[in-house]
Amino acid sequence: MDEMEIKEALDLETESEYEYEYEAIQEQQADELSELLERRDMKQLKTRMEELNEFDVAEFLSEIEDNRMPMVFRLLSKTAAADVFANMDVPDQERIINSVTDSELAGLVEELYVDDAVDMMEELPANVVARIMRIATPQTRNLINQYLRYPENSAGSIMTSEFVDLKKYMSVKESIARIRRIGADKETIYVCFVTTMDRKLEGIVSVKDLLLNDDDMIIEDLMDRNVIFASTTDDQEAVSEMFSDYDLMAMPVVDKENRLVGIVTVDDVIDVMEQEATEDFDIMAGILPSDIPYSRSPIFELFKNRIPWLMFMMLSATFTSMILTSFEDMLAVQAGLVAFIPMLMGTGGNSGAQSSTAVIRSLSLGDTETSDALKVVWRELRVAFLCGIALAAVNFVKMLLLDGMLLNNDAVTVSVAATVSLTIIFVVLFAKVVGSMLPILAEKLGLDPAVMANPLISTVTDAVSLLIYIFVAKLILNI
Amino acid sequence: MDEMEIKEALDLETESEYEYEYEAIQEQQADELSELLERRDMKQLKTRMEELNEFDVAEFLSEIEDNRMPMVFRLLSKTAAADVFANMDVPDQERIINSVTDSELAGLVEELYVDDAVDMMEELPANVVARIMRIATPQTRNLINQYLRYPENSAGSIMTSEFVDLKKYMSVKESIARIRRIGADKETIYVCFVTTMDRKLEGIVSVKDLLLNDDDMIIEDLMDRNVIFASTTDDQEAVSEMFSDYDLMAMPVVDKENRLVGIVTVDDVIDVMEQEATEDFDIMAGILPSDIPYSRSPIFELFKNRIPWLMFMMLSATFTSMILTSFEDMLAVQAGLVAFIPMLMGTGGNSGAQSSTAVIRSLSLGDTETSDALKVVWRELRVAFLCGIALAAVNFVKMLLLDGMLLNNDAVTVSVAATVSLTIIFVVLFAKVVGSMLPILAEKLGLDPAVMANPLISTVTDAVSLLIYIFVAKLILNI
Repeated sequence: MDEMEIKEALDLETESEYEYEYEAIQEQQADELSELLERRDMKQLKTRMEELNEFDVAEFLSEIEDNRMPMVFRLLSKTAAADVFANMDVPDQERIINSVTDSELAGLVEELYVDDAVDMMEELPANVVARIMRIATPQTRNLINQYLRYPENSAGSIMTSEFVDLKKYMSVKESIARIRRIGADKETIYVCFVTTMDRKLEGIVSVKDLLLNDDDMIIEDLMDRNVIFASTTDDQEAVSEMFSDYDLMAMPVVDKENRLVGIVTVDDVIDVMEQEATEDFDIMAGILPSDIPYSRSPIFELFKNRIPWLMFMMLSATFTSMILTSFEDMLAVQAGLVAFIPMLMGTGGNSGAQSSTAVIRSLSLGDTETSDALKVVWRELRVAFLCGIALAAVNFVKMLLLDGMLLNNDAVTVSVAATVSLTIIFVVLFAKVVGSMLPILAEKLGLDPAVMANPLISTVTDAVSLLIYIFVAKLILNI
Repeated sequence: MDEMEIKEALDLETESEYEYEYEAIQEQQADELSELLERRDMKQLKTRMEELNEFDVAEFLSEIEDNRMPMVFRLLSKTAAADVFANMDVPDQERIINSVTDSELAGLVEELYVDDAVDMMEELPANVVARIMRIATPQTRNLINQYLRYPENSAGSIMTSEFVDLKKYMSVKESIARIRRIGADKETIYVCFVTTMDRKLEGIVSVKDLLLNDDDMIIEDLMDRNVIFASTTDDQEAVSEMFSDYDLMAMPVVDKENRLVGIVTVDDVIDVMEQEATEDFDIMAGILPSDIPYSRSPIFELFKNRIPWLMFMMLSATFTSMILTSFEDMLAVQAGLVAFIPMLMGTGGNSGAQSSTAVIRSLSLGDTETSDALKVVWRELRVAFLCGIALAAVNFVKMLLLDGMLLNNDAVTVSVAATVSLTIIFVVLFAKVVGSMLPILAEKLGLDPAVMANPLISTVTDAVSLLIYIFVAKLILNI
């Protein structure tokens, strides 16, 4: 039962009047800041910037001219500056770094959460990274070093070490006191991690559990021992899947000795999800993925990311050309056959793309595993059969009525229509099976399944569709 | 500077030894539960199920045979049952509902968070919804009714009314006491919402703020007045974008009088993000989106979702066929031209798909707005020019060397190669501009930009590529 039906059943209407919009408020805030800047009312500008959300302030800064931006940024207090900085794009971060003194930069780096600092380091040019490493305190440098150790896109690379740890013999009261003492610098205080003396993870306890229980309860009796955790080398995509499955707020990350080394928080996971989805979209469209958002990518970067697949696909179309050249004379014998080649190739490509997209997405959500290959083939075969029959039937009627009678194309006879229609069935069957299997094969080989998407599938189906067409034409038309 | 370079610079290695895996533990747990079920040790089974995570229990239940599953489910205590139930897929939920008594069902519905109950109602068949509405308490029925009022995929439809509200004159101590008193049933206690007497939203305060400040501080001095909020009718995609921009844990939702009516929590937003990304993938591949995961979709459902676009695209290929029929004789004059049609159409389709995908994704992340149309055209024109030139150059050399000399295709002369190469440049220019503009046009018209993706673009570019080819051939080859 969908929503509309329920609404009809219950005789409800939807609201349509004017409502408050956060966007309007946001614009008004930006205007206000710009006005203060115009009037050079730096004191008021500083006050307002510190009141507003750090993301909005970062947006505001990104829109003022290059030479004034660092000056405005320096109005911010140390903590506010770090928060705003973490929300900036890399080019803006670079402008800031290049305009502050070493001691200001050192202060900034110390204030950043380690995971944000590491994120930033991965994007900055080498000379800037070297400068930051030189001025950071030894502890921070060690931490950053340690984080850079983890493979890109691993749980280790997105975790932070700023968490609250408790011991199981502590009482609720002691625990809350500890949170109040050390909580200020922690990325989250809402999930606390219970560890042994040698830093092994024993359980987790939420602040909700603490607040909703008596002060003298002991953590051991409260903590959840069935902890969902990740290893430092786990892929970030697997981590984000677990967050979505288990509705987590924070997840502990352990090293190979099962020692707690960091936590991943839900806000980082949201970024990971966006990044992974964007990556899949890119790969599936034959674009090499990039960390830079589209609107800020230099033209040459876009070119570099797009040309490899275009080139590969153009060159691999040589097979199709060769087949077409070999059989050109044969196809020419029966006039009208050539006209349907683009339709057949298109139908093959689209059918295959549907299957590959469905399977790629299902794999990436953990809904399908590589061990389901046989099940998937069987489903796709049946769907392909239904689609093929429906398309073939409509095409047969359409060719006879529209192409044959209305458009007066004499070449379209019943046997030509039958040839094209029968070809459709086989092409759809082939495309859907190949489209669904290639992503699973890729996953089995340890490749990203998304690479087996539309561009590659259509290169394969183009050539095979043509061969099927020629084979069926030989059979039915005896040419 | 990428991670590898940093690692090399710092002379770091990556870890590669065996690490702990949560997945292994999960499997072991499932085996243990199955074993208890085999041995009919129901008491121990109940104990273990209540200890484990509700998502894992739901997975376990989904895998036992139909007739035993509801029996095992009924072992769970009321609260655990509701948690597990909320994590089940709709078919499993239906099996449970159909096997419990009215009073058991009523208990279950009361225990569910309202948003979970509404989610479920939207998917269930009408007779089951009617049964639930009949047995629910009047308060719950009212709440559900009220939620069903909001448009599908709006902030109102994903919010929950179980939040903690505070007043600005309360002290930290009073606030914490209130959280301890009413917090147990709330979806989150970590963000509290400060409202006026007439329920208008005044500010928010986090439990972190409360814990890190003195007991006698007054909420008014602590709360953040710059609240990021949504309206009930805002699209859920806009809400999830704000969560990702502002790193939120919970967001208040207000009605048109600015009264606080509910909150959206981050775990719901993660589901929204997955759902929206899946929807975009589906639409872009020419599949009608569906709420049912791929692995559980009935074959006929898959067929119904895939056939409309396949049919539409097959029929619209008639234009390409007509063009090809009209110019067949002309193209036949110069042997060899026909063989390159699939490559030209493929290159057009792929170039267009790259641009449309990049723009669709950028629009959905809020990185590009419809007002950026001119900027986007200008970027795409330049990228298309670079891609076109590169492809044309490689194609020219490839045709002369490979097709002409190696494959001994006499039809491939310098002027034929020039015709094909020049066509490539125009095709890529056309495809990239159309591919980038159609999604923006769709957004302007209030449609989902994803609908302007690969399938539609390739239908357009197929026909136009052919026309460009014919035009260029006339010009260069004088045919």
